[in-house]
Amino acid sequence: MPAWNVLAATCPSRTSLARIANKWTAMAVAVLGNGRLRFGDLKTQLEGISGKVLTETLRDLERDGLVTRHVHAEVPPRVEYELTPLGLTLHEPLLALCRWAEEHIAEVLENRENYDAR
Amino acid sequence: MPAWNVLAATCPSRTSLARIANKWTAMAVAVLGNGRLRFGDLKTQLEGISGKVLTETLRDLERDGLVTRHVHAEVPPRVEYELTPLGLTLHEPLLALCRWAEEHIAEVLENRENYDAR
Repeated sequence: MPAWNVLAATCPSRTSLARIANKWTAMAVAVLGNGRLRFGDLKTQLEGISGKVLTETLRDLERDGLVTRHVHAEVPPRVEYELTPLGLTLHEPLLALCRWAEEHIAEVLENRENYDAR
Repeated sequence: MPAWNVLAATCPSRTSLARIANKWTAMAVAVLGNGRLRFGDLKTQLEGISGKVLTETLRDLERDGLVTRHVHAEVPPRVEYELTPLGLTLHEPLLALCRWAEEHIAEVLENRENYDAR
C-alpha cells in the first residue's frame, strides 16, 4: 500500500480532502444524515446554493461513492439522494464542523472585531 | 443567544464553516497541532501552496482567532504561527478529515473509475 499523504502535492488523497473539506459538502452530508432527500429539498435546506453548484456537488459526491442516486420510475421521475455506507462514515465528522461553526461563531465574531480594530 | 444555523444563507456561522471546511485550513491546522512553525516551514509542509494563498489562509485564521502570530525581534525578524486554544479545538476534527482522505482514497479512486466507466 502506498503511503497516502494529503501534504504531498500530487497525492490523490488531496483530491479527496478537497472534496470533503468544503462547506457545501459539509452541509449536504450533514442534512443527508437524516435520510434520503430529493434535489429540490436539498436545495431548500442548503439555503442560497445555486442549482448549478448543488448539481456539481452531488455529482462529485456520487462519483467518489459518498452519495447514491435513486431514480424512481414515475412521471415526472422522482430522484432522491442518499449517503452510501462510505458517505455515512463522514456524517459525524462533517456534522461536527457545522456544529463547531455554530457553537463558536460568537467568539469568532469577537475575534474578527478585535483584529479589524488593530 | 441567537439560534446560529449554518444552513441559513445569511447566518454568520456559515462564514466560519467556509473558513474551516477548506483543504488548506485543514492541512495548516493539522500540521500546526505539532507546535508553532515559521511561514517557510509551513509553506514547505503544505506542498504546492502558493505564498499568496498561505498568507491569506494564515491571515484569515488569525483574524478568526484560530492562529496567533509571534514576531521575534531579530534581524531578520523571525515570525512563527501557533494554534490558539480556540484553534486547538479544531485540531482533532480537521486532522480526522485529513486521515479520512488518506484512509479511504483507494476506495474513492475505485469508485471514480467505476463512475467514469458507466
